[in-house]
Parts: sequence; C-alpha cells; structure tokens
Amino acid sequence: MNKTWTYSTPGIPDGLFARGAVPMTKEEVRALTICRARLAPGQVIWDVGAGTGSLTVEAALLSPQGKVFAVEQKEEAVQLIRENCRRFDVTNVSVVLGRAPEALCDLPSPDRVIVGGSGGELPGILAFCAARLNPSGLVVVNAIAPATLTAALAVLGTHPFTELAGIQVQVSRLEQLGKEQFFRAQNAVWILCAQKEVE
Amino acid sequence: MNKTWTYSTPGIPDGLFARGAVPMTKEEVRALTICRARLAPGQVIWDVGAGTGSLTVEAALLSPQGKVFAVEQKEEAVQLIRENCRRFDVTNVSVVLGRAPEALCDLPSPDRVIVGGSGGELPGILAFCAARLNPSGLVVVNAIAPATLTAALAVLGTHPFTELAGIQVQVSRLEQLGKEQFFRAQNAVWILCAQKEVE
Amino acid sequence: MNKTWTYSTPGIPDGLFARGAVPMTKEEVRALTICRARLAPGQVIWDVGAGTGSLTVEAALLSPQGKVFAVEQKEEAVQLIRENCRRFDVTNVSVVLGRAPEALCDLPSPDRVIVGGSGGELPGILAFCAARLNPSGLVVVNAIAPATLTAALAVLGTHPFTELAGIQVQVSRLEQLGKEQFFRAQNAVWILCAQKEVE
Amino acid sequence: MNKTWTYSTPGIPDGLFARGAVPMTKEEVRALTICRARLAPGQVIWDVGAGTGSLTVEAALLSPQGKVFAVEQKEEAVQLIRENCRRFDVTNVSVVLGRAPEALCDLPSPDRVIVGGSGGELPGILAFCAARLNPSGLVVVNAIAPATLTAALAVLGTHPFTELAGIQVQVSRLEQLGKEQFFRAQNAVWILCAQKEVE
Repeated sequence: MNKTWTYSTPGIPDGLFARGAVPMTKEEVRALTICRARLAPGQVIWDVGAGTGSLTVEAALLSPQGKVFAVEQKEEAVQLIRENCRRFDVTNVSVVLGRAPEALCDLPSPDRVIVGGSGGELPGILAFCAARLNPSGLVVVNAIAPATLTAALAVLGTHPFTELAGIQVQVSRLEQLGKEQFFRAQNAVWILCAQKEVE
Repeated sequence: MNKTWTYSTPGIPDGLFARGAVPMTKEEVRALTICRARLAPGQVIWDVGAGTGSLTVEAALLSPQGKVFAVEQKEEAVQLIRENCRRFDVTNVSVVLGRAPEALCDLPSPDRVIVGGSGGELPGILAFCAARLNPSGLVVVNAIAPATLTAALAVLGTHPFTELAGIQVQVSRLEQLGKEQFFRAQNAVWILCAQKEVE
Repeated sequence: MNKTWTYSTPGIPDGLFARGAVPMTKEEVRALTICRARLAPGQVIWDVGAGTGSLTVEAALLSPQGKVFAVEQKEEAVQLIRENCRRFDVTNVSVVLGRAPEALCDLPSPDRVIVGGSGGELPGILAFCAARLNPSGLVVVNAIAPATLTAALAVLGTHPFTELAGIQVQVSRLEQLGKEQFFRAQNAVWILCAQKEVE
Repeated sequence: MNKTWTYSTPGIPDGLFARGAVPMTKEEVRALTICRARLAPGQVIWDVGAGTGSLTVEAALLSPQGKVFAVEQKEEAVQLIRENCRRFDVTNVSVVLGRAPEALCDLPSPDRVIVGGSGGELPGILAFCAARLNPSGLVVVNAIAPATLTAALAVLGTHPFTELAGIQVQVSRLEQLGKEQFFRAQNAVWILCAQKEVE
C-alpha cells in the first residue's frame, strides 16, 4: 500500500510531488478538478496534458481497479509522471508520450477525460473525446486562457455533450511576512465539465 | 450500499441534499474543506455546527469504519442532518443536539474536527478541541466573518497547534442568462487548518 | 454647479442614481472604468449601451467643456439617463436613442469610447469605433460574458488598436448580518482597453 | 501645469512612479482608494504611511488649492515621495518624516485621512484621527493583513465614526505568455472607510 498518501481524500500538497520546471495544477484546483470528475473504482480515465502527473496520481488513487492513461508530449514531463507514480506507489497508470489528439487513438474508450493542458489543441481534443467517451462519461477541462475558456464552452455546450457546468475558482494562500499575515493570490482557473449524452 | 452517491470523490452537488432554510456549505467549499481534513477510514470526526449535515455526510462516506459526530444546536437542523444521512445511506453518524463546546464533553476524542459553524463561540470551541484532539489530529475551520477569521488565526497559530495553513477561496458559477453566459459570484470563504502537536 | 456630487473623484454611490429595472454598472467597476478611460476636459466621449447613464454622468462631470454621447436602444433606459443627468446637473450630454453601431453614424468622432453594454453587437461596434476613433483615442469595454471577453480581446489586440490592457476585478462588499459582518461577493467584471494607433 | 499626468481621473499607471524597493499601492487599488476618499478642491488630506507617495500624488492632483501631508517613517521612502512630487509637478504636498501617530501632532486638522500603511500602529493612528478629523471628515484604510482588517473594523464601527463601509477588491491583470493570454492575480486588498460624526 501507498505510504506517501494514506488518505481517502484528494488534494495532495504540492510539495509532495516531484516538479522540475513543469507547471503543476495546484492543490486546491487539482482537488476541485478531481471532485468534478466524480471518480469511482474501475473507471478508464484519460489525463490529457498530464504535465507532472499530479492529476494522474490523484485519479489513480481514487479509482483503484481503474486505469489512468496519462498523455503528455514533453519527454521531460513524462519522466516526472513516472517518478510521481513511483513516489505514490501508483501502479494503475499508463504513460503515453505523444501529442493529443493523435496520441489518444489507440487508448481504450474512457469513462472520464481530464484535460489539464491542451497546448492550443482543445477543439480537436474535445471533438475526439466527444467521439470516444463512453455514454454518460464526463469530461473536465481546466482553462487559464480566455481563448481556452470560450473554446471549451462552445464545444461542451453542444451535442453530444450535456449538463454543461463551470466555475471560476480563485484561491489565495495564507503567508507569514515578518510579524504580519496576508493572503497571497494565485491565478484564477476555470473548471468546466460536461457529460456525454446517453444515446 | 449508498445509491445516491456512488463516487469515491467528495463534492456532492448542493441539490442532492435536503436543505430547508438552514444555510449549507456549498459544493466547492465543502469539497475543499473535506480535502483539507485529510480523511481516512476509521477516524473519529467531529462536525461542529453541522447545519444541514452536508459536511457530515461527505465525511461519513470518506471514513468508512470511522464515526462522525454531528453537533448542532438547532432542532430544525438536526432533523435535516438525519434526513440527509438516510438519503445517502450513511450509518456511521451520531447526531448530537446541543451547543458547542458543552455538547462535545461526552464524545470520544477526535482525530479530526471540522468547524463549519461556530455561532460566535469559536475561541471556546477551539480551546476545547485543543484539549481533546488526539495527537497529530487536524482541525479545519470555515469562516465567513472577519472576526471568525482572526479568532481562528490567533488560536490555531499557537500551542498546542502547529502547521497553520489557510486559504481564501472565491468561486463563481457559470450561469445562462438568455443567450448570454456569465459567472455568478459566491461569497468568499476562509478555510483554516492546523494540526495538534504530537506530544 | 452640481449639488448632488461635489467631489472631483469618480465612484458615485449606486444609490444616488435613479435605476428602475435597468442593470447598472456598480460603483467600484464604474470608478475603475472611468479611470481607465483617462478623461480630460474637452473630450468627445461615446458611452455605448449607456443603460442608466451612470457612466455617462461620471464622464460628463470629469470632462467639463467636453461632450458625452449616451447611446442606448431601450426607451425606458433613455428616460433614466435623462433623469440622472438632471439629478447631477449635467448639461454636456446628448442622449441618442438607437442601436449601436448604426446609431453612432452621425456623431462627431470620439476621443474616448466606453462600451458598457453591447447586446451581442460588440465586434460591429468595435469595428465602427476603430474607424471613427480619433488618433491616440482610447476605448474601454466592460464584459461579463466570456464571449464578450474574447471578442473584445480579438479586436482590441489587432490593428488599428495598440496598448491592449485588461483586468478582471472582483469586489465584495461589507455587510452586517445580525451581529456578524461578512463580505458579499459581486460578480467579476472584465475591463479591457486599447488605444487607437497614431497614424 | 503638470505634463506627466494630464487627465482628470485617478489611476496613474504604476510604471510612471519612481518606486525603488518600497512597496506601492497598485493602480487599481489606488484608484478605488482615492475614489472612496471623495476628494475635492481645498481639502486638508493626511496620507499616513505614504510609502512611494503614489496616493499622495493622486490626492494632490485631485485637490488643487488643498494640501496633502505625506507622513512616512522611512528616510528612503521620503526621498521617493519627493521625487514623485517633482515628477508630477505637485506643489501642494508637505512631506513629514516620522512615525504616526506622533508625527501627526503638529499637522492641521484633516478633512480626509488615507491610511495606506500602518506598520502595526493602526489602532493608535485611528484613535488619533478620531480626535483630529474635522466633522464629517472621512478616513480610508487599506488593509492586507487580517489583523489590520479587524482592527480597522473595530474602530471605524464605533463612535465618533459612522457610515462604516468596506470592500475587498481582487484584481487580475491580463498578460501575454507566448501566444497565450491569461490574467495574473494580484493580492486582494480591503478598503475600509468611515465618516466622523457631525457633532
């Protein structure tokens, strides 16, 4: 059993992950993203633009007997994903080096798709997910660019997607500066999700 | 097994709970609060100022073989907690009608304390928790009033508490207004947490 | 001289305006919008989608010897604009009943354009402003819909516009609830601005 | 006449000020602070904890025939205030090197007090202002520390103060990162204000 994270809740502290120079989804946004993905044992989960693999690790821990496919185009990030999987004793992960949506072709059809990073390819990725997602499967998209937000809203608001929902979340973290305390702002993130219609 | 919520992740939609006129911790803040409580099977958990019991239900689901004590002084809210426990097939909950901290006296020592509502009694409640919390146990406080924020910071920043951490989280939810979409702001909440020192 | 607002600073309290059922730009967002418009005496200013005329009044007060053209397509709102101009003794305003961009055709070329409301016509309005704005003139756009945000970013980021800048501002206001104080969140607004290139 | 800032609106861009290593109230928060101070020609204005003098300069520009007293305890900051006054051709400012509240003793009674920085002395400063503020004068306090927030709320909510109002404002600024745009979050600030009762 995993000794690094022994809890049943998501929201692993950022500092427990190997990071390098790869951007990482921060603890609170990661927790809310995982929550919106409504994970359960036995699911097939795609983590697209997996980065450091922090979402991958959380998803793998919360879907035992499931399988997470972490798709990432940067070699350096792929190494980090592998290291983070080792660090959290996560064995139900396949790391896929490649560029989405092409790299998604040979994967089994997912119950959940998490798009943490899309490198400007979001419409293509979501179109691919629309085709491959299992009926009543969920897709969750993180966006920090306005263009990503509107691209996601456009696709997730139309057939075969339904139940479009979204939040903007802005977190500030308590810090000590000398004798004073203040809250340091983190950049706001949009978390968007939708369900594939049951045919 | 619970049929209402079959997922391993917290963040149950607000609409699935019975609510009445009792204020409820909203989905996103509830999810982050539960995540910061770092739940695990077998814990003793106090939910102080349990309100509708939404945090109680989430905690009970994520700590099977654990026990949640939901403490609430309003009779009307106690009924809601019981109804929500039935609704989610949660059986590891004891509802305690009474006013904290007095109502906490006869409860077994907790591994986790969640203070969702404190009715102006926060310093007394936290002093009581400081005495009764098991070593390395965690306390998580939700605050919407500035006075609650500073009261919590003062107590959680001193012995026997350590590892003070806190966030302010502000969530806005996507809504459709005619043909236009916008994000409706929800009030910001502070989530503060600390650990009891290992003696 | 105007007796209702005797100060040299913008940010007139919401409650001083006649409002009816017409949506109004709130005090803080209005103040920041006016500030970003960098007003000065003698300017020609278009307030497009003027609504209650709250931006019109503030602009008129801060540009004496200037002229504000308040363009609004709803008859009911036009009445409010006139009433608010009377209330603040503002005489350098022309109210134009009509739909932008058509209603802008006969107006003198502006030094400043403020687009508070665009009714889905933003690209057309901004294209028109691009043609008519005086060299080194400024345009300021308020957006609450994601689609408005990205439409504004697309146009204001390209020729003949330069110096694109933007903020998202989220304000929460202190309220008293019984003995407790809290901050009630208002919806976030994007304020975008750009300058027309000097030819 | 001042050639650096020729507009009638506050909200001078941060980059136009000399800054050094002294923390500066950012453009948007500065604009809203100045707006809440409701300035007018001829006022006596105290800027307590003046820092770089950015609030001092804005106040001086908006209160011609008025007088701004910029009180600051750090020699390095005092030099910056003087430089910024020169830069904006502002001549109605007296810079006072010293620690508030002691340094306020010999100043003429103010119509407006702006407390941008209080170095932990806020209760003493506000008690002094309560005594010296002219009837119906206004005080505006910026706070980034929770302790400052609650200290200000406590004093400004009681006699001789009335009309307590406050906001939390959180601004994010558009930035370009390669081909992508995003909004970079700035730390939230509380702006609190109150009026001295007319005796």
